[in-house]
Amino acid sequence: MNEINNIVLIGSGNVATNLAIAFHNNGKNIIQVISRSNDTAKILADKVSATYTNTINDINLKADLYIISVNDDAIASIASSLNLENKLVVHTSGSIEIDVLKNTSTNYGVLYPLQTFSKETLVDFKNIPFCIEANNLNNSKAITELAGYLSEDVRLINSNERKVIHLAAVFACNFTNYMYLIAEDILKEQSISFDILKPLILKTAKNIVDSKPENTQTGPAKRNDQKLIEKHLTLLKDNPEYKEIYTIISKSILNKFHK
Amino acid sequence: MNEINNIVLIGSGNVATNLAIAFHNNGKNIIQVISRSNDTAKILADKVSATYTNTINDINLKADLYIISVNDDAIASIASSLNLENKLVVHTSGSIEIDVLKNTSTNYGVLYPLQTFSKETLVDFKNIPFCIEANNLNNSKAITELAGYLSEDVRLINSNERKVIHLAAVFACNFTNYMYLIAEDILKEQSISFDILKPLILKTAKNIVDSKPENTQTGPAKRNDQKLIEKHLTLLKDNPEYKEIYTIISKSILNKFHK
Repeated sequence: MNEINNIVLIGSGNVATNLAIAFHNNGKNIIQVISRSNDTAKILADKVSATYTNTINDINLKADLYIISVNDDAIASIASSLNLENKLVVHTSGSIEIDVLKNTSTNYGVLYPLQTFSKETLVDFKNIPFCIEANNLNNSKAITELAGYLSEDVRLINSNERKVIHLAAVFACNFTNYMYLIAEDILKEQSISFDILKPLILKTAKNIVDSKPENTQTGPAKRNDQKLIEKHLTLLKDNPEYKEIYTIISKSILNKFHK
Repeated sequence: MNEINNIVLIGSGNVATNLAIAFHNNGKNIIQVISRSNDTAKILADKVSATYTNTINDINLKADLYIISVNDDAIASIASSLNLENKLVVHTSGSIEIDVLKNTSTNYGVLYPLQTFSKETLVDFKNIPFCIEANNLNNSKAITELAGYLSEDVRLINSNERKVIHLAAVFACNFTNYMYLIAEDILKEQSISFDILKPLILKTAKNIVDSKPENTQTGPAKRNDQKLIEKHLTLLKDNPEYKEIYTIISKSILNKFHK
Protein backbone atom coordinates (compact mmCIF):
# COMPACT_ATOMS: atom_id res chain seq x y z
CA MET A 1 0.00 0.00 0.00
CA ASN A 2 1.41 3.34 -1.05
CA GLU A 3 0.63 6.46 0.94
CA ILE A 4 -1.66 8.93 -0.76
CA ASN A 5 0.00 12.31 -1.25
CA ASN A 6 -1.15 13.83 -4.52
CA ILE A 7 -4.85 14.29 -5.09
CA VAL A 8 -6.99 15.41 -8.03
CA LEU A 9 -10.36 16.80 -7.04
CA ILE A 10 -13.25 16.58 -9.47
CA GLY A 11 -15.85 19.02 -8.24
CA SER A 12 -15.79 22.40 -6.53
CA GLY A 13 -19.01 22.38 -4.49
CA ASN A 14 -19.51 22.36 -0.73
CA VAL A 15 -18.04 18.93 -0.02
CA ALA A 16 -15.19 19.29 -2.54
CA THR A 17 -14.24 22.68 -1.09
CA ASN A 18 -14.21 21.49 2.50
CA LEU A 19 -12.27 18.32 1.69
CA ALA A 20 -9.72 20.04 -0.56
CA ILE A 21 -8.90 22.74 1.98
CA ALA A 22 -8.74 20.25 4.86
CA PHE A 23 -6.37 17.91 2.97
CA HIS A 24 -4.28 20.87 1.84
CA ASN A 25 -4.02 22.07 5.46
CA ASN A 26 -3.01 18.59 6.59
CA GLY A 27 0.01 18.17 4.36
CA LYS A 28 -1.56 16.59 1.28
CA ASN A 29 -1.13 18.08 -2.20
CA ILE A 30 -4.19 18.94 -4.22
CA ILE A 31 -2.52 18.98 -7.61
CA GLN A 32 -5.58 19.75 -9.73
CA VAL A 33 -9.20 20.89 -9.40
CA ILE A 34 -11.58 19.96 -12.22
CA SER A 35 -15.00 21.54 -12.46
CA ARG A 36 -17.58 22.26 -15.17
CA SER A 37 -17.08 25.95 -14.47
CA ASN A 38 -13.59 27.40 -14.83
CA ASP A 39 -14.54 30.20 -12.43
CA THR A 40 -15.48 27.98 -9.48
CA ALA A 41 -12.59 25.64 -10.27
CA LYS A 42 -10.20 28.58 -10.07
CA ILE A 43 -11.65 29.84 -6.77
CA LEU A 44 -11.02 26.50 -5.12
CA ALA A 45 -7.72 25.82 -6.90
CA ASP A 46 -6.32 29.16 -5.71
CA LYS A 47 -7.15 28.27 -2.10
CA VAL A 48 -5.16 25.03 -2.25
CA SER A 49 -2.37 26.04 -4.64
CA ALA A 50 -3.61 23.68 -7.35
CA THR A 51 -3.92 23.91 -11.12
CA TYR A 52 -7.42 23.82 -12.54
CA THR A 53 -9.37 22.98 -15.66
CA ASN A 54 -12.97 22.65 -16.83
CA THR A 55 -12.02 19.90 -19.31
CA ILE A 56 -12.17 16.39 -17.91
CA ASN A 57 -9.83 15.17 -20.68
CA ASP A 58 -7.10 17.44 -19.31
CA ILE A 59 -7.05 15.42 -16.11
CA ASN A 60 -3.60 15.04 -14.54
CA LEU A 61 -2.85 11.32 -14.55
CA LYS A 62 -0.01 11.49 -12.02
CA ALA A 63 -2.06 11.69 -8.82
CA ASP A 64 -2.32 8.96 -6.14
CA LEU A 65 -6.04 9.56 -5.67
CA TYR A 66 -8.97 10.96 -7.66
CA ILE A 67 -11.88 12.27 -5.62
CA ILE A 68 -15.18 12.67 -7.49
CA SER A 69 -17.18 15.08 -5.36
CA VAL A 70 -20.08 16.25 -7.50
CA ASN A 71 -23.89 16.05 -7.42
CA ASP A 72 -25.21 12.49 -7.26
CA ASP A 73 -26.75 12.90 -10.71
CA ALA A 74 -23.39 13.63 -12.28
CA ILE A 75 -21.29 10.86 -10.74
CA ALA A 76 -22.18 8.11 -13.22
CA SER A 77 -21.47 10.19 -16.31
CA ILE A 78 -18.14 11.46 -14.97
CA ALA A 79 -17.19 7.93 -13.93
CA SER A 80 -17.94 6.57 -17.39
CA SER A 81 -16.04 9.37 -19.13
CA LEU A 82 -12.83 8.59 -17.20
CA ASN A 83 -10.37 5.74 -17.62
CA LEU A 84 -7.95 5.83 -14.71
CA GLU A 85 -6.61 2.27 -15.26
CA ASN A 86 -5.32 1.25 -11.83
CA LYS A 87 -5.37 4.68 -10.13
CA LEU A 88 -7.38 4.85 -6.90
CA VAL A 89 -10.67 6.72 -7.39
CA VAL A 90 -13.41 7.48 -4.85
CA HIS A 91 -16.69 9.33 -4.75
CA THR A 92 -18.06 11.16 -1.69
CA SER A 93 -21.77 10.47 -1.97
CA GLY A 94 -24.03 9.00 0.72
CA SER A 95 -26.48 7.43 -1.66
CA ILE A 96 -24.56 6.21 -4.70
CA GLU A 97 -23.26 2.65 -4.76
CA ILE A 98 -19.56 1.92 -4.92
CA ASP A 99 -20.02 -0.02 -8.17
CA VAL A 100 -20.65 3.16 -10.15
CA LEU A 101 -16.84 3.34 -10.28
CA LYS A 102 -16.10 -0.25 -11.32
CA ASN A 103 -15.36 0.63 -14.96
CA THR A 104 -13.36 3.75 -14.08
CA SER A 105 -10.40 1.98 -12.48
CA THR A 106 -9.42 -1.36 -11.01
CA ASN A 107 -9.02 0.41 -7.65
CA TYR A 108 -11.99 2.29 -6.30
CA GLY A 109 -13.96 3.18 -3.20
CA VAL A 110 -16.09 5.65 -1.30
CA LEU A 111 -15.11 8.43 1.12
CA TYR A 112 -18.36 9.80 2.56
CA PRO A 113 -18.06 12.43 5.28
CA LEU A 114 -21.31 12.53 7.25
CA GLN A 115 -21.85 16.25 7.70
CA THR A 116 -23.65 19.20 6.17
CA PHE A 117 -21.22 21.50 4.36
CA SER A 118 -21.10 25.03 3.06
CA LYS A 119 -18.32 26.92 1.31
CA GLU A 120 -18.69 29.88 3.65
CA THR A 121 -18.04 28.17 6.97
CA LEU A 122 -15.44 25.44 6.73
CA VAL A 123 -15.86 22.53 9.10
CA ASP A 124 -13.30 21.01 11.41
CA PHE A 125 -13.29 17.36 10.34
CA LYS A 126 -11.81 16.04 13.59
CA ASN A 127 -15.06 14.53 14.95
CA ILE A 128 -16.86 14.02 11.67
CA PRO A 129 -17.57 10.37 10.83
CA PHE A 130 -16.05 9.20 7.55
CA CYS A 131 -17.82 6.23 5.98
CA ILE A 132 -15.29 4.24 3.96
CA GLU A 133 -15.88 1.52 1.41
CA ALA A 134 -13.45 0.01 -1.11
CA ASN A 135 -13.28 -2.75 -3.69
CA ASN A 136 -10.48 -4.53 -1.83
CA LEU A 137 -8.67 -4.55 1.51
CA ASN A 138 -5.65 -2.67 0.22
CA ASN A 139 -7.73 0.24 -1.04
CA SER A 140 -9.81 0.20 2.11
CA LYS A 141 -6.62 0.58 4.16
CA ALA A 142 -5.33 3.40 1.96
CA ILE A 143 -8.59 5.38 2.12
CA THR A 144 -8.93 4.78 5.86
CA GLU A 145 -5.40 6.04 6.46
CA LEU A 146 -6.08 9.12 4.37
CA ALA A 147 -9.36 9.91 6.17
CA GLY A 148 -7.46 9.48 9.44
CA TYR A 149 -5.47 12.61 8.57
CA LEU A 150 -8.69 14.61 8.98
CA SER A 151 -10.87 12.71 11.42
CA GLU A 152 -10.67 10.46 14.46
CA ASP A 153 -13.90 8.73 13.44
CA VAL A 154 -13.32 6.58 10.35
CA ARG A 155 -15.66 3.62 9.80
CA LEU A 156 -16.00 0.82 7.26
CA ILE A 157 -19.55 1.05 5.95
CA ASN A 158 -20.94 -0.86 2.98
CA SER A 159 -23.18 0.64 0.29
CA ASN A 160 -26.43 -0.63 1.85
CA GLU A 161 -25.56 0.72 5.30
CA ARG A 162 -24.43 4.00 3.79
CA LYS A 163 -27.77 4.48 2.02
CA VAL A 164 -29.61 3.95 5.29
CA ILE A 165 -27.28 6.36 7.10
CA HIS A 166 -27.92 8.91 4.39
CA LEU A 167 -31.69 8.47 4.73
CA ALA A 168 -31.41 8.91 8.52
CA ALA A 169 -29.34 12.04 7.89
CA VAL A 170 -32.12 13.49 5.74
CA PHE A 171 -34.41 13.32 8.78
CA ALA A 172 -31.77 14.45 11.30
CA CYS A 173 -30.44 17.33 9.21
CA ASN A 174 -32.56 18.32 6.18
CA PHE A 175 -35.97 17.81 7.76
CA THR A 176 -34.79 19.27 11.05
CA ASN A 177 -33.63 22.38 9.25
CA TYR A 178 -37.03 22.56 7.59
CA MET A 179 -38.69 22.47 11.03
CA TYR A 180 -36.56 25.54 11.86
CA LEU A 181 -37.72 27.15 8.62
CA ILE A 182 -41.39 26.53 9.41
CA ALA A 183 -40.87 27.94 12.91
CA GLU A 184 -39.31 31.06 11.41
CA ASP A 185 -42.20 31.38 8.96
CA ILE A 186 -44.79 31.12 11.75
CA LEU A 187 -43.02 33.81 13.79
CA LYS A 188 -42.70 36.10 10.75
CA GLU A 189 -46.48 36.45 10.52
CA GLN A 190 -46.43 38.06 13.96
CA SER A 191 -43.23 40.01 13.17
CA ILE A 192 -41.34 38.12 15.87
CA SER A 193 -37.63 37.60 15.24
CA PHE A 194 -36.40 34.03 14.77
CA ASP A 195 -33.64 34.88 17.27
CA ILE A 196 -35.99 34.06 20.12
CA LEU A 197 -35.82 30.34 19.19
CA LYS A 198 -32.06 29.99 18.91
CA PRO A 199 -31.30 28.97 22.52
CA LEU A 200 -34.11 26.40 22.31
CA ILE A 201 -32.82 24.96 19.03
CA LEU A 202 -29.27 24.65 20.36
CA LYS A 203 -30.45 23.00 23.59
CA THR A 204 -32.66 20.55 21.68
CA ALA A 205 -29.65 19.43 19.65
CA LYS A 206 -27.29 19.29 22.64
CA ASN A 207 -29.82 17.20 24.58
CA ILE A 208 -29.22 14.18 22.36
CA VAL A 209 -25.47 14.17 22.91
CA ASP A 210 -25.85 12.76 26.42
CA SER A 211 -29.31 11.26 26.09
CA LYS A 212 -31.51 9.54 23.51
CA PRO A 213 -34.29 11.17 21.44
CA GLU A 214 -36.83 8.93 23.18
CA ASN A 215 -35.93 10.43 26.54
CA THR A 216 -35.80 14.05 25.38
CA GLN A 217 -39.14 14.04 23.53
CA THR A 218 -41.47 16.69 24.97
CA GLY A 219 -44.47 18.67 23.71
CA PRO A 220 -48.25 18.41 23.33
CA ALA A 221 -48.29 15.15 21.32
CA LYS A 222 -45.90 13.47 23.76
CA ARG A 223 -48.23 14.51 26.64
CA ASN A 224 -51.29 13.58 24.56
CA ASP A 225 -52.58 17.12 25.16
CA GLN A 226 -55.41 17.09 22.60
CA LYS A 227 -56.72 20.49 23.66
CA LEU A 228 -53.43 22.19 22.83
CA ILE A 229 -53.04 20.23 19.59
CA GLU A 230 -56.47 21.52 18.53
CA LYS A 231 -55.47 25.10 19.42
CA HIS A 232 -52.31 24.78 17.34
CA LEU A 233 -54.21 23.39 14.37
CA THR A 234 -56.57 26.37 14.61
CA LEU A 235 -53.59 28.74 14.58
CA LEU A 236 -52.40 26.96 11.42
CA LYS A 237 -55.78 27.04 9.66
CA ASP A 238 -54.57 29.40 6.91
CA ASN A 239 -51.56 27.23 6.10
CA PRO A 240 -52.79 23.78 5.04
CA GLU A 241 -49.26 22.57 4.31
CA TYR A 242 -47.90 23.30 7.79
CA LYS A 243 -51.15 22.09 9.31
CA GLU A 244 -50.73 18.75 7.54
CA ILE A 245 -47.11 18.45 8.72
CA TYR A 246 -48.19 19.28 12.28
CA THR A 247 -50.97 16.67 12.11
CA ILE A 248 -48.88 13.85 10.64
CA ILE A 249 -45.93 14.28 13.00
CA SER A 250 -48.17 14.65 16.05
CA LYS A 251 -50.04 11.49 15.08
CA SER A 252 -46.76 9.62 14.75
CA ILE A 253 -45.53 10.88 18.15
CA LEU A 254 -48.85 9.82 19.70
CA ASN A 255 -48.52 6.35 18.15
CA LYS A 256 -44.96 6.05 19.41
CA PHE A 257 -45.63 7.07 23.01
CA HIS A 258 -49.30 6.22 23.64
CA LYS A 259 -49.86 2.83 22.06
CA MET B 1 -43.09 48.73 42.95
CA ASN B 2 -41.74 46.43 45.62
CA GLU B 3 -38.89 44.10 44.86
CA ILE B 4 -39.77 40.43 44.78
CA ASN B 5 -37.84 38.43 47.34
CA ASN B 6 -40.04 35.67 48.72
CA ILE B 7 -41.57 33.21 46.29
CA VAL B 8 -44.08 30.36 46.60
CA LEU B 9 -43.80 27.79 43.84
CA ILE B 10 -46.84 25.77 42.86
CA GLY B 11 -45.55 22.81 40.89
CA SER B 12 -42.47 20.61 41.03
CA GLY B 13 -42.02 19.55 37.40
CA ASN B 14 -39.26 20.38 34.92
CA VAL B 15 -39.95 24.12 34.63
CA ALA B 16 -40.71 24.57 38.35
CA THR B 17 -37.51 22.75 39.31
CA ASN B 18 -35.29 24.77 36.98
CA LEU B 19 -36.85 28.10 38.01
CA ALA B 20 -36.83 27.37 41.75
CA ILE B 21 -33.18 26.36 41.80
CA ALA B 22 -32.12 29.29 39.59
CA PHE B 23 -33.95 31.85 41.76
CA HIS B 24 -32.57 30.22 44.90
CA ASN B 25 -29.04 30.42 43.49
CA ASN B 26 -29.58 34.08 42.59
CA GLY B 27 -30.46 35.32 46.05
CA LYS B 28 -34.23 34.90 46.03
CA ASN B 29 -36.06 32.92 48.73
CA ILE B 30 -38.29 30.06 47.72
CA ILE B 31 -40.33 29.90 50.92
CA GLN B 32 -42.69 27.10 49.92
CA VAL B 33 -43.15 24.41 47.28
CA ILE B 34 -46.68 23.11 46.69
CA SER B 35 -47.28 19.99 44.64
CA ARG B 36 -49.95 17.31 44.33
CA SER B 37 -47.36 14.80 45.46
CA ASN B 38 -45.65 15.32 48.82
CA ASP B 39 -42.69 13.28 47.59
CA THR B 40 -41.84 15.41 44.57
CA ALA B 41 -42.64 18.59 46.56
CA LYS B 42 -40.10 17.50 49.19
CA ILE B 43 -37.40 16.68 46.63
CA LEU B 44 -37.57 20.19 45.17
CA ALA B 45 -38.14 21.93 48.54
CA ASP B 46 -35.01 20.31 49.97
CA LYS B 47 -32.94 21.62 47.07
CA VAL B 48 -33.99 25.23 47.72
CA SER B 49 -34.36 25.18 51.52
CA ALA B 50 -38.13 25.65 51.35
CA THR B 51 -41.07 24.19 53.24
CA TYR B 52 -43.48 22.05 51.26
CA THR B 53 -47.06 20.83 51.21
CA ASN B 54 -49.41 18.90 48.96
CA THR B 55 -52.42 20.90 50.23
CA ILE B 56 -53.18 24.05 48.28
CA ASN B 57 -55.13 25.46 51.26
CA ASP B 58 -51.93 25.43 53.32
CA ILE B 59 -50.42 28.00 50.98
CA ASN B 60 -48.15 30.52 52.69
CA LEU B 61 -49.78 33.93 52.14
CA LYS B 62 -46.70 35.98 53.03
CA ALA B 63 -44.82 35.69 49.72
CA ASP B 64 -44.21 38.51 47.23
CA LEU B 65 -44.87 36.25 44.25
CA TYR B 66 -46.74 33.03 43.48
CA ILE B 67 -45.52 31.05 40.49
CA ILE B 68 -47.96 28.49 39.09
CA SER B 69 -45.78 26.12 37.08
CA VAL B 70 -47.89 23.06 36.36
CA ASN B 71 -49.30 21.28 33.29
CA ASP B 72 -51.45 23.51 31.10
CA ASP B 73 -54.50 21.40 31.94
CA ALA B 74 -54.18 22.08 35.65
CA ILE B 75 -53.61 25.86 35.60
CA ALA B 76 -57.27 26.89 35.43
CA SER B 77 -58.39 24.68 38.31
CA ILE B 78 -55.50 25.78 40.54
CA ALA B 79 -56.14 29.41 39.63
CA SER B 80 -59.81 29.12 40.56
CA SER B 81 -59.08 27.36 43.84
CA LEU B 82 -56.82 30.20 45.02
CA ASN B 83 -57.74 33.64 46.33
CA LEU B 84 -54.54 35.64 46.63
CA GLU B 85 -56.30 39.05 46.91
CA ASN B 86 -53.66 41.53 45.70
CA LYS B 87 -50.62 39.25 45.77
CA LEU B 88 -48.71 38.99 42.49
CA VAL B 89 -49.31 35.64 40.76
CA VAL B 90 -47.90 34.35 37.46
CA HIS B 91 -48.04 31.19 35.41
CA THR B 92 -45.21 29.88 33.22
CA SER B 93 -47.12 28.43 30.26
CA GLY B 94 -46.56 29.24 26.61
CA SER B 95 -50.09 28.55 25.51
CA ILE B 96 -52.43 29.65 28.31
CA GLU B 97 -53.81 33.18 28.29
CA ILE B 98 -52.98 35.62 31.03
CA ASP B 99 -56.70 36.01 31.88
CA VAL B 100 -56.85 32.56 33.43
CA LEU B 101 -55.50 34.35 36.53
CA LYS B 102 -57.87 37.32 36.59
CA ASN B 103 -60.01 35.94 39.45
CA THR B 104 -57.03 34.72 41.44
CA SER B 105 -55.64 38.14 42.33
CA THR B 106 -55.81 41.78 41.27
CA ASN B 107 -52.13 41.51 40.27
CA TYR B 108 -51.17 38.85 37.79
CA GLY B 109 -49.00 38.00 34.83
CA VAL B 110 -47.01 35.46 32.87
CA LEU B 111 -43.36 34.43 33.14
CA TYR B 112 -42.68 32.06 30.22
CA PRO B 113 -39.10 30.86 29.75
CA LEU B 114 -38.67 29.69 26.16
CA GLN B 115 -36.62 26.54 26.61
CA THR B 116 -36.95 22.77 26.95
CA PHE B 117 -36.31 21.66 30.52
CA SER B 118 -35.50 18.50 32.39
CA LYS B 119 -34.91 17.93 36.09
CA GLU B 120 -31.70 16.02 35.41
CA THR B 121 -29.73 18.70 33.56
CA LEU B 122 -30.39 22.18 34.91
CA VAL B 123 -30.17 24.98 32.40
CA ASP B 124 -28.23 28.19 32.66
CA PHE B 125 -30.92 30.83 32.14
CA LYS B 126 -28.51 33.60 31.12
CA ASN B 127 -29.40 33.54 27.39
CA ILE B 128 -32.87 32.06 27.63
CA PRO B 129 -35.64 34.39 26.45
CA PHE B 130 -38.26 35.18 29.09
CA CYS B 131 -41.65 36.18 27.69
CA ILE B 132 -43.32 38.53 30.17
CA GLU B 133 -46.92 39.68 30.30
CA ALA B 134 -48.80 41.42 33.13
CA ASN B 135 -52.17 43.00 33.82
CA ASN B 136 -50.60 46.43 34.46
CA LEU B 137 -47.36 48.34 34.02
CA ASN B 138 -46.33 48.01 37.65
CA ASN B 139 -46.58 44.23 37.58
CA SER B 140 -44.88 44.10 34.23
CA LYS B 141 -41.93 46.02 35.70
CA ALA B 142 -41.76 43.77 38.75
CA ILE B 143 -41.79 40.54 36.74
CA THR B 144 -39.29 41.94 34.23
CA GLU B 145 -36.92 42.91 37.04
CA LEU B 146 -37.23 39.47 38.57
CA ALA B 147 -36.59 37.66 35.27
CA GLY B 148 -33.58 39.95 34.83
CA TYR B 149 -31.94 38.19 37.79
CA LEU B 150 -31.75 35.05 35.67
CA SER B 151 -31.59 36.16 32.06
CA GLU B 152 -30.27 38.93 29.85
CA ASP B 153 -33.12 38.37 27.38
CA VAL B 154 -36.43 39.51 28.88
CA ARG B 155 -39.21 40.52 26.47
CA LEU B 156 -42.74 41.87 26.78
CA ILE B 157 -44.92 39.46 24.80
CA ASN B 158 -48.72 39.44 24.78
CA SER B 159 -50.85 36.28 24.96
CA ASN B 160 -51.44 36.07 21.21
CA GLU B 161 -47.77 36.44 20.40
CA ARG B 162 -46.86 33.94 23.09
CA LYS B 163 -49.19 31.32 21.62
CA VAL B 164 -47.55 31.73 18.21
CA ILE B 165 -44.07 31.52 19.75
CA HIS B 166 -45.11 28.34 21.52
CA LEU B 167 -46.41 26.86 18.27
CA ALA B 168 -43.15 27.75 16.53
CA ALA B 169 -41.29 26.11 19.42
CA VAL B 170 -43.22 22.88 18.86
CA PHE B 171 -41.74 22.74 15.35
CA ALA B 172 -38.26 23.92 16.36
CA CYS B 173 -37.94 21.67 19.41
CA ASN B 174 -40.55 18.88 19.72
CA PHE B 175 -40.80 18.00 16.03
CA THR B 176 -37.06 18.41 15.57
CA ASN B 177 -36.45 15.96 18.39
CA TYR B 178 -38.88 13.59 16.69
CA MET B 179 -36.83 13.82 13.47
CA TYR B 180 -33.84 12.69 15.58
CA LEU B 181 -35.94 9.84 16.94
CA ILE B 182 -36.97 8.68 13.45
CA ALA B 183 -33.33 8.84 12.34
CA GLU B 184 -32.33 6.68 15.31
CA ASP B 185 -35.11 4.21 14.48
CA ILE B 186 -33.99 3.94 10.86
CA LEU B 187 -30.39 3.27 11.90
CA LYS B 188 -31.47 0.69 14.48
CA GLU B 189 -32.81 -1.60 11.77
CA GLN B 190 -29.27 -1.84 10.38
CA SER B 191 -27.73 -2.01 13.88
CA ILE B 192 -25.94 1.28 13.32
CA SER B 193 -25.38 3.41 16.41
CA PHE B 194 -27.15 6.78 16.58
CA ASP B 195 -23.76 8.25 17.61
CA ILE B 196 -22.80 8.55 13.97
CA LEU B 197 -25.38 11.35 13.52
CA LYS B 198 -24.44 13.49 16.51
CA PRO B 199 -21.88 15.77 14.81
CA LEU B 200 -24.37 16.34 11.98
CA ILE B 201 -27.20 17.19 14.38
CA LEU B 202 -25.06 19.65 16.34
CA LYS B 203 -23.82 21.33 13.14
CA THR B 204 -27.34 21.61 11.74
CA ALA B 205 -28.43 23.45 14.88
CA LYS B 206 -25.33 25.66 15.04
CA ASN B 207 -25.78 26.63 11.38
CA ILE B 208 -28.87 28.71 12.17
CA VAL B 209 -27.07 30.81 14.79
CA ASP B 210 -25.20 32.78 12.14
CA SER B 211 -27.47 32.12 9.18
CA LYS B 212 -31.15 31.61 8.37
CA PRO B 213 -32.91 28.25 7.83
CA GLU B 214 -33.63 29.27 4.23
CA ASN B 215 -29.91 29.53 3.54
CA THR B 216 -28.93 26.32 5.34
CA GLN B 217 -31.55 24.07 3.75
CA THR B 218 -29.91 21.17 1.92
CA GLY B 219 -30.95 17.68 0.87
CA PRO B 220 -32.72 15.83 -1.96
CA ALA B 221 -35.99 17.84 -1.85
CA LYS B 222 -34.09 21.13 -1.81
CA ARG B 223 -32.15 19.97 -4.92
CA ASN B 224 -35.35 18.53 -6.45
CA ASP B 225 -33.53 15.19 -6.74
CA GLN B 226 -36.55 13.01 -7.54
CA LYS B 227 -34.44 9.92 -8.16
CA LEU B 228 -33.03 9.99 -4.63
CA ILE B 229 -36.44 10.80 -3.11
CA GLU B 230 -37.81 7.68 -4.83
CA LYS B 231 -34.93 5.59 -3.50
CA HIS B 232 -35.58 6.85 0.04
CA LEU B 233 -39.30 6.10 -0.21
CA THR B 234 -38.41 2.57 -1.31
CA LEU B 235 -36.15 2.17 1.72
CA LEU B 236 -39.11 3.27 3.89
CA LYS B 237 -41.63 0.96 2.23
CA ASP B 238 -42.13 -1.13 5.39
CA ASN B 239 -42.81 1.91 7.54
CA PRO B 240 -45.85 3.74 6.16
CA GLU B 241 -45.78 6.32 8.96
CA TYR B 242 -42.21 7.46 8.33
CA LYS B 243 -42.82 7.21 4.59
CA GLU B 244 -45.76 9.61 4.92
CA ILE B 245 -43.70 12.04 7.01
CA TYR B 246 -40.88 11.89 4.43
CA THR B 247 -43.36 12.51 1.60
CA ILE B 248 -45.20 15.42 3.22
CA ILE B 249 -42.08 17.28 4.35
CA SER B 250 -40.30 16.74 1.01
CA LYS B 251 -43.37 18.03 -0.82
CA SER B 252 -43.40 21.13 1.34
CA ILE B 253 -39.66 21.75 0.80
CA LEU B 254 -40.19 21.37 -2.95
CA ASN B 255 -43.06 23.86 -2.86
CA LYS B 256 -40.95 26.30 -0.87
CA PHE B 257 -37.87 26.20 -3.08
CA HIS B 258 -39.14 25.19 -6.54
CA LYS B 259 -42.32 27.14 -7.09
